[in-house]
Amino acid sequence: MASVPLATIAVDAMGGDFAPGAVLEGVASALAADPSLRVLLVGGLEIVEAFATAHERCEAVATTQVIGMGEHSAAAVRGKPDSSIVVGCRLVKEGRADGFFSAGSTGAAMAAATLIIGRIKGVQRPAIATVLPTAGSPCVLVDSGANADCKPEHLAQFATMGAAYARTALGILEPRVGLLNIGEEPTKGSQLAQEAYLLLKAGSPGFVGNVEGRDIPAGTVDVVVTDGFTGNVMLKLMEGMSKHLLAEFKTALMSSPVNKVAAAILKPSLDALRDRLDPDSHGAAPLLGLNGLALIGHGSSGPRAIASALRVGAVAVRAGLVGSIAASLTPEDA
Amino acid sequence: MASVPLATIAVDAMGGDFAPGAVLEGVASALAADPSLRVLLVGGLEIVEAFATAHERCEAVATTQVIGMGEHSAAAVRGKPDSSIVVGCRLVKEGRADGFFSAGSTGAAMAAATLIIGRIKGVQRPAIATVLPTAGSPCVLVDSGANADCKPEHLAQFATMGAAYARTALGILEPRVGLLNIGEEPTKGSQLAQEAYLLLKAGSPGFVGNVEGRDIPAGTVDVVVTDGFTGNVMLKLMEGMSKHLLAEFKTALMSSPVNKVAAAILKPSLDALRDRLDPDSHGAAPLLGLNGLALIGHGSSGPRAIASALRVGAVAVRAGLVGSIAASLTPEDA
Repeated sequence: MASVPLATIAVDAMGGDFAPGAVLEGVASALAADPSLRVLLVGGLEIVEAFATAHERCEAVATTQVIGMGEHSAAAVRGKPDSSIVVGCRLVKEGRADGFFSAGSTGAAMAAATLIIGRIKGVQRPAIATVLPTAGSPCVLVDSGANADCKPEHLAQFATMGAAYARTALGILEPRVGLLNIGEEPTKGSQLAQEAYLLLKAGSPGFVGNVEGRDIPAGTVDVVVTDGFTGNVMLKLMEGMSKHLLAEFKTALMSSPVNKVAAAILKPSLDALRDRLDPDSHGAAPLLGLNGLALIGHGSSGPRAIASALRVGAVAVRAGLVGSIAASLTPEDA
Repeated sequence: MASVPLATIAVDAMGGDFAPGAVLEGVASALAADPSLRVLLVGGLEIVEAFATAHERCEAVATTQVIGMGEHSAAAVRGKPDSSIVVGCRLVKEGRADGFFSAGSTGAAMAAATLIIGRIKGVQRPAIATVLPTAGSPCVLVDSGANADCKPEHLAQFATMGAAYARTALGILEPRVGLLNIGEEPTKGSQLAQEAYLLLKAGSPGFVGNVEGRDIPAGTVDVVVTDGFTGNVMLKLMEGMSKHLLAEFKTALMSSPVNKVAAAILKPSLDALRDRLDPDSHGAAPLLGLNGLALIGHGSSGPRAIASALRVGAVAVRAGLVGSIAASLTPEDA
């Protein structure tokens, strides 16, 4: 008997740049690694049936429609009721799955999850929480892209939900919460940041004040709160910088024959570093504030990122993330 | 006779975390490197006089007040008329210097420059332009922190002024201008980004559309336009990431005796890379949109950054940056 509780994740077999191949490979590896994981594989009949037949703890849910990356999210969700994204969210709503994961269109997955799974009572805006690699322990970024325009009270809720995520799913007992700003003083920054500061100061446990861009890689906070515009710019910039700097190092390492020899010696250490900086190592970002678990993956997810996403999903299910977020919201929210 | 025109820069001897030592060292090195550079060294009598006596092409301008890093900018500028920052800006206003540089309080330098040097007719908001290192040619970021809250028409002017800077001071003949956003499509992003897109599309030469965070390190555009909040977060994040990743590499290189040997072989290549990524290598950011040149340096500027700042200042003076920005603004701006 497995010692950990069963977790059932519905997986969008059609989502992501390398679907369905990378998704299937990732699911196979996640199932092998976690004997208490069950997968409902959602997608085209010919894709999901053969795989489910060949793998234990995997059930096929055949769908006939796919939402493409370029489609208008809300329209696609309404117009394609038998798409893998819509059906996957419905499995969560109906209690057949504990969570849903897609590496497909982020906009469509957010729209479907919000519409079908629904928001926790009192949540004004669900937000995406992404775990960033830092010099210290990982840092949860909320919102990393769901809400381009925010009000101060949205940011205050992001702080509460982000802290609940850090506690529940990352095991950080007393998360330090920072507000992303362009100066340390409360009077610095945009109107939004200044007003959010006052709200967080007044009512957010663990709030340590403003943090700046340079504090994030240093890992000075466990949760960083910002609007989805700034958060998304930051997330993509970090990805770009990691990629760019690793490429620059590689060029430096290969710039002469003697360097190449030295580089060969260093390879294992540098590979370990690359893995640590790899955005694939975390794999999935939950949409916080919904009445069920929905996880969004990077469009470029490879098998490793997919497997990692399912691991993140199982942890969130077993830790009771959704219930803990609902419990963390103050009575005035609900 | 020097073949390049004389450039006279007023330098705040009191500004920056390592002032006056780092400033004086940087000025000495800049004067030695550029025989057509003249410096008006502004600061405490005992500091500036001895240095000016000992160095050619350097004149002392003694002041009695200093604006500290923590002071309220506008109040400090009004309350300390004999501070090095206020006097330095006055030297530009009076035509005694072609430009002013300070590594002191960015807020105070901006406030003093805007108040004393004044805006070019039609400029709504002066903006800070910072040159970012990328995988390709450098990229000009406007605004990197002067205006936390912006309107779409401000961003449109930032694009015009940033392109003029890239052309004049960086020698990029036809700068590609991108709008920082969280998706490629015109309908993506915040209200501000969507409205700015339409303005840029309609009237900004060289506009290539939206760019995302990951495009900046890749160097896909020559000028990236955003509000000063997002820009400042981005700038400080890039600094933090470079520092963090270089530290991680160093740890990897030192993790075993055999690695250390390999690292010693690679040292020259890695040092060259570090220099290229070093924010000190550019050294100063001009405040675009003023009726004279004002350059702001990083508070942590060392001698190398100060020398580099004076080089950037001299290039901007000789290239006629201020006139070229004035000429680039459309009649409806003026």
